[in-house]
Amino acid sequence: MSTLDIKAPKDIESLYTFTDDASNPELFESWKPKIQAYRDELDKNTLKEYRVPESDIPSDIDTKIFNTVEFLSKSTALTEKEKEITSMSATELADKIAKSELSSVEVLKAFAHRAVILQQCTNFAMDFFIHEGLKRAEELDDYLAKNGKTVGPLHGLPISLKEQIGYAGKITNGGWVSYLDYIPEENATTIKVLLNLGATFYVRTNQPQSLMHLDSNNNITGRSRNPYNSLLTPGGSSGGEGACVAGKGSCLGVGTDIGGSIRAPAAFSGCWGLRPTSRRISCWGGVSSGRGQESVVAVAGPLANSIDDIELFMKSYINEGKPWDDDQLCIPVLWRDVPKPNAKDVTVAILYDDGLVKPHPPIERGLKFVESKLKDAGVNVIKFEPFEIEEAYDVVHKMYSCDGNYMQKEMIKKSGEPLLPMTKWALSFGDGDKMYTAAENRDLNYRRDALRKKYNDYFVKNKVDYIISPTYVGVASVTIQDGIAGAYYWGYTSLFNILDLPTLVFPTGLSQDPKVDVKDESYVPRNKLDKIEQDKYVAELLEGAPICFQLTARRYFDEETVAFGKVIDDILKN
Amino acid sequence: MSTLDIKAPKDIESLYTFTDDASNPELFESWKPKIQAYRDELDKNTLKEYRVPESDIPSDIDTKIFNTVEFLSKSTALTEKEKEITSMSATELADKIAKSELSSVEVLKAFAHRAVILQQCTNFAMDFFIHEGLKRAEELDDYLAKNGKTVGPLHGLPISLKEQIGYAGKITNGGWVSYLDYIPEENATTIKVLLNLGATFYVRTNQPQSLMHLDSNNNITGRSRNPYNSLLTPGGSSGGEGACVAGKGSCLGVGTDIGGSIRAPAAFSGCWGLRPTSRRISCWGGVSSGRGQESVVAVAGPLANSIDDIELFMKSYINEGKPWDDDQLCIPVLWRDVPKPNAKDVTVAILYDDGLVKPHPPIERGLKFVESKLKDAGVNVIKFEPFEIEEAYDVVHKMYSCDGNYMQKEMIKKSGEPLLPMTKWALSFGDGDKMYTAAENRDLNYRRDALRKKYNDYFVKNKVDYIISPTYVGVASVTIQDGIAGAYYWGYTSLFNILDLPTLVFPTGLSQDPKVDVKDESYVPRNKLDKIEQDKYVAELLEGAPICFQLTARRYFDEETVAFGKVIDDILKN
Repeated sequence: MSTLDIKAPKDIESLYTFTDDASNPELFESWKPKIQAYRDELDKNTLKEYRVPESDIPSDIDTKIFNTVEFLSKSTALTEKEKEITSMSATELADKIAKSELSSVEVLKAFAHRAVILQQCTNFAMDFFIHEGLKRAEELDDYLAKNGKTVGPLHGLPISLKEQIGYAGKITNGGWVSYLDYIPEENATTIKVLLNLGATFYVRTNQPQSLMHLDSNNNITGRSRNPYNSLLTPGGSSGGEGACVAGKGSCLGVGTDIGGSIRAPAAFSGCWGLRPTSRRISCWGGVSSGRGQESVVAVAGPLANSIDDIELFMKSYINEGKPWDDDQLCIPVLWRDVPKPNAKDVTVAILYDDGLVKPHPPIERGLKFVESKLKDAGVNVIKFEPFEIEEAYDVVHKMYSCDGNYMQKEMIKKSGEPLLPMTKWALSFGDGDKMYTAAENRDLNYRRDALRKKYNDYFVKNKVDYIISPTYVGVASVTIQDGIAGAYYWGYTSLFNILDLPTLVFPTGLSQDPKVDVKDESYVPRNKLDKIEQDKYVAELLEGAPICFQLTARRYFDEETVAFGKVIDDILKN
Repeated sequence: MSTLDIKAPKDIESLYTFTDDASNPELFESWKPKIQAYRDELDKNTLKEYRVPESDIPSDIDTKIFNTVEFLSKSTALTEKEKEITSMSATELADKIAKSELSSVEVLKAFAHRAVILQQCTNFAMDFFIHEGLKRAEELDDYLAKNGKTVGPLHGLPISLKEQIGYAGKITNGGWVSYLDYIPEENATTIKVLLNLGATFYVRTNQPQSLMHLDSNNNITGRSRNPYNSLLTPGGSSGGEGACVAGKGSCLGVGTDIGGSIRAPAAFSGCWGLRPTSRRISCWGGVSSGRGQESVVAVAGPLANSIDDIELFMKSYINEGKPWDDDQLCIPVLWRDVPKPNAKDVTVAILYDDGLVKPHPPIERGLKFVESKLKDAGVNVIKFEPFEIEEAYDVVHKMYSCDGNYMQKEMIKKSGEPLLPMTKWALSFGDGDKMYTAAENRDLNYRRDALRKKYNDYFVKNKVDYIISPTYVGVASVTIQDGIAGAYYWGYTSLFNILDLPTLVFPTGLSQDPKVDVKDESYVPRNKLDKIEQDKYVAELLEGAPICFQLTARRYFDEETVAFGKVIDDILKN
């Protein structure tokens, strides 16, 4: 099967519940020069001196699998020292910089160099400003030399930022063409906090139009590619972050998540990613269509290449960053030091299949692998019997669109940009264009609270500590042709948004193997959504895609989530 | 001026923005037997053997000032021992019960006895079940005798409950006639928690129709009277609690607050009351019209006769009660031990007048007294220059009614009960009957968040630790004639609901004195609301009403609020 045979789901238009009264081709024409200028700027700032020759990158990268991670590891464009630096965890780097064993400048140079090549292969970035970053790194080196101490626990760490996070003086578009005119005067809280902690910034990363795809494609800089397989999406909406962190173009990244937007990129691209409980990491100062929407709130959180780095980020951001001094929505609750639990004291419930849409073969295989490893380590593993899955899906999807798509359309109308296929899907969530009344919205909230009660009771009454589940039906999905084969079913991630439970994506070390992960041709789909997702499983196109899962704990048990993440890491590595 | 001259505000009907399509006299007739049965039950359970002769209570109690607190202190119906017990703080009582110096039974008997007499004078209760309480107290005494330890930190404490809090097996009406049919199967989380901690229950307290008055009057058991002055309201909506706790019919009480409903009762009746930050004390399992409404959320919190008791409640409820195991909305954040700050290290901003509605003479006098006391103790006192007061008032009042009064009317329609004057006022909040769209509701939320940002910045940038402010324009308002002279302006309390800031009401020890607190007849009201509130100040009718204020800190700085409450207590007592 050729990738060109991948089509949009059959009769997809019959599922649409919106009217396209937002796009306007004539108006959009007038925005094209701005888009071109933005692309030119990105091209200019993708430093020529850091690039590999274009000829090094296959021209059929969008029709034939290309593994950027492998390419980078073999490439001689990066020095051995640069490879060594970019292979270190943020925790190691912070330690070595603090001891002056590495300088902030050489660390940033290594990551920026790698990021530029990664950009050539995956188009993960929207905005590079490496010279600014290097100036900041120099200042940090000077500070350390003069004062004999770092400015903070993230001193000199090259951190990537989802572009949507408001950056003072820089266009912040959030994937909307109309926002190419928007330049915040003030940094978002998260940027202020990370600067205070010593971070260096040099790259902002890609995201989809509307921020409501599990891929990263927009009308400004186009789509990003998965670092392990160029036919696949790195996920979304923080997909640029997934590609960047997993491709080691940064040592830590910041994403946001309202339906899976940190976790899909982490899982698809193959790194760690934490969707914290709400109001711990600030979203204040970002561009989104969710202003004032709090039925299901967006959260921000880290993507990283190790669980220690997730903890480094959370602990230093919260305890030393004190985001509540700037963002009134963050709760002033310190990060607790929770020791790794003893595997034998832990009960984990594994969700193999939510009953609505069946996971693909590599996911089934991966879960069995995890189950067996955990059992061997003495963990009490039980099966999670799904409940209220349809209710949760229904409620959260109605919440996404219950302003009748008003705000999203407002943001699209200003430029008249065409709707991408996955945007059309997102505008069809819930009741699509139907504007809810405040009373109907309250009813959704009440149904949400009832769900939260049932799940909280599940944990407490059954003495279950954690749930492990698929992040998505499959590994990263094929996302050529503007994403028409993308990820349609959000149920595995959005469940934990509606429940507001801390959820950590962890890599298993496994990846999709077409020879092993063979499609079950006899399977009869349960419903339209299931059919859409099953049709998309074409084993040979998914080769090399990482297999990752979600680890979920009770609300505000973020620290316990990370603590057991370390245990899982130990178990899977042994 | 006679109390009978107190009228509804002039032209009040011109301010109404609702249609009364909910009350239905014919339907209401059919509910009258149920109301009568409920009253009969209350009368039966107001134990005859605990009552004083009816002749002890003046028949003109509703037209001439009667001070119940004074009456109780002089009455010989209570034994000296009972007076001694009911004058102790909850903290002292818990200690003496734990040491077996007092039994749970004798403590409950003393409070129940006093509560029954208090009920005769103030009509604060909706539901007595003293025999049940005594049985529980006996069990607690047995447990302590057998095990040599208490069941928890509130072992044997007689705690009163706002009736609205769902009580398994007991009618829970929330002030709505139609809910005389509602008997919860399960206890509200707060009741479960308090039972686990050792509380004894025996009385549930009065509240207004709709729960949206700052008084306590309904079509079921009528209106409550202030324990210090029978012409006045004890406040609302937790007004029964205010009267009960201040009148020492219980040693601790639980109220709820969405616009001032813990603080107005505490301030009007003259006790301590804490409106904690949201999601610390559970509201799950209560009857209200706010299901799924989370733009401005209701909170539950304690009323008490000492600041130590407020802390005892908060600390034990949270740290040992762990409400999040039952109520998924509560955040699992422990109560921190915060030492009393040194007065000299503290900056307090005093709000004398919010610029919209001017406080009455006793409030001005009280604030000057507090300022001078704090300054003498070394506190850095500055003037709070009000900002965004009209915006806050506008946003929060629109939030209250932005479902177009849908849910309140639903709850009224079922019985067709007539609307009380203050209910009509509440149904006129914001845009009254106008149903908001979800998008308009989001816009209100966004305006709220912008307000919260500005106030958070105020605290942080000016290094202000606390704000002290009036709880209401005046002391408790006259509330004869079905509350038509009641409290119309909520701005001083609702400000801290929209901002979700922890706010503690503290007594000053002062009370209104008609000779000193003379009306300024030359004052020209600023607006209609101001005129309504100024017209109501009739000095001679308010005699003896306590003067109390609000102490407010940053969001989730509940512990710091209580810690400084102790300092204020020390300062005002010296």
